[in-house]
Amino acid sequence: MQITQKLSGSPMISKNSIGLIRSLEQKKARDKYGLFLAEGDKICSDLLTSDIPVKAVYFTRQWALENESLLNKQPGSAELMEVSETELGKISLLTTPNKVLAMAYQQKSAFSWDMLKTGPVVLIDQVQDPGNLGTIIRTADWFGFHTIVAAPGTVDFYNPKVIQSAMGSAFRVMHFKYDLETLLRENLEKDRWPVYATTLGGENLYSQRLEKKGFYLFGNEANGISQVLQTLAGSHIVIPQGPVQNGKQPADSLNVAVAAAVVMAEFARQEIAQLNG
Amino acid sequence: MQITQKLSGSPMISKNSIGLIRSLEQKKARDKYGLFLAEGDKICSDLLTSDIPVKAVYFTRQWALENESLLNKQPGSAELMEVSETELGKISLLTTPNKVLAMAYQQKSAFSWDMLKTGPVVLIDQVQDPGNLGTIIRTADWFGFHTIVAAPGTVDFYNPKVIQSAMGSAFRVMHFKYDLETLLRENLEKDRWPVYATTLGGENLYSQRLEKKGFYLFGNEANGISQVLQTLAGSHIVIPQGPVQNGKQPADSLNVAVAAAVVMAEFARQEIAQLNG
Repeated sequence: MQITQKLSGSPMISKNSIGLIRSLEQKKARDKYGLFLAEGDKICSDLLTSDIPVKAVYFTRQWALENESLLNKQPGSAELMEVSETELGKISLLTTPNKVLAMAYQQKSAFSWDMLKTGPVVLIDQVQDPGNLGTIIRTADWFGFHTIVAAPGTVDFYNPKVIQSAMGSAFRVMHFKYDLETLLRENLEKDRWPVYATTLGGENLYSQRLEKKGFYLFGNEANGISQVLQTLAGSHIVIPQGPVQNGKQPADSLNVAVAAAVVMAEFARQEIAQLNG
Repeated sequence: MQITQKLSGSPMISKNSIGLIRSLEQKKARDKYGLFLAEGDKICSDLLTSDIPVKAVYFTRQWALENESLLNKQPGSAELMEVSETELGKISLLTTPNKVLAMAYQQKSAFSWDMLKTGPVVLIDQVQDPGNLGTIIRTADWFGFHTIVAAPGTVDFYNPKVIQSAMGSAFRVMHFKYDLETLLRENLEKDRWPVYATTLGGENLYSQRLEKKGFYLFGNEANGISQVLQTLAGSHIVIPQGPVQNGKQPADSLNVAVAAAVVMAEFARQEIAQLNG
């Protein structure tokens, strides 16, 4: 009923709303308002089926018709507005606007050890590229890593490009910002979970037992894992290169999202093998 | 000697050169001139140590001092010019210009089966994102895949963002553009190498023997591998998800560069295990 009215009404987005939405491209405004943006059919569908409270959803008529049940499930506090393609273009950060854009409330839980009862946990030391962080979140979701802790200095979890490349997984993976040196020192005094640091000088990944109750640490694109964290991590692992061919010196490193994926895949492989006896 | 002169001379980049360089952001201009751009310390070092002929190199004084031997190795036909940070900013496509920019000649070899005597070979069906293609090239280089064949409709190999994210591997991995349906039909009539297509409905990756003389096929970000290629591929493989936790439905797919990495890593793991007996 709510949606049907909107479908016939079709008011314009106010200038204030346009200004607010576009400001959310910047971290400063996201922090100020505690809001973030999600765009596109798949990502907004995942957002609207999650527990995350939504402030507003702007959508084309076609999208509304295909997603009426999703829209009907939203509480009355959420602004639901049908817009034209042109209006959507005015608020979209994408090169090609994709049917729907939502504004939602950031979920910022303070880190606590109680949240980590089950692992595995991804630790991120100052990854800078939003596409890399988003891809790591998506990959973590696929392979069964449900918690990510990022060091201060890591790209903002709610950067629109992180949300886009995470493809809905940002709404399923728990995430915290916390000083990783503190975390690893506390770990040594408490649970003593193994800490696997992916570096170029480590032990062969495939010779390690990768524990579910474990931390999986990945570092900055240019500088890798900071020295103090490397020292605190008990297990240094390396992803073996393929056999050298034609005598050519191969690539001297992997993209961090790729390295994280190969390690997480190996964890999942071992886990499944163990579950199957 | 050549470099020392440049260091003292320090002429300005001509407006014509600036126009040419900046035009190379566009595929049309790259195709017209047969040129491409490479930027940054690591990537330009890799370019200048490769066999790829270079048309021009623009660098800061500091970079020249640190890379004198590399510059001295360039043939007389290459323009070597010291520039100020400001001038570098005028020609750079990067947000933060990084010491050096080079213009080099595209290497376009026609695909021939003779080039494929050894595998493994990556096949790319219309990947669109330059970061994804560049990351796949870098990963291929790391895991010992020295040839990539891309279907028409795939993002241009010489797109500056492909070159940047490949991090020098674009100068080591052979690459061709070729119709993949033709290739797979020819394969059926000739060598009959196995064709591994990564799709969501395939067999468990880890239950497959991954052959060195084999094709590894990855598809478009949104649509995956086209239907006709799927039909022609003998082996459909899937990367298993981790065990479901908390009853949550996980991500429904992986980024294509991540999926490619997990498959290439598994190939390299099997290959090394075999070599070690």
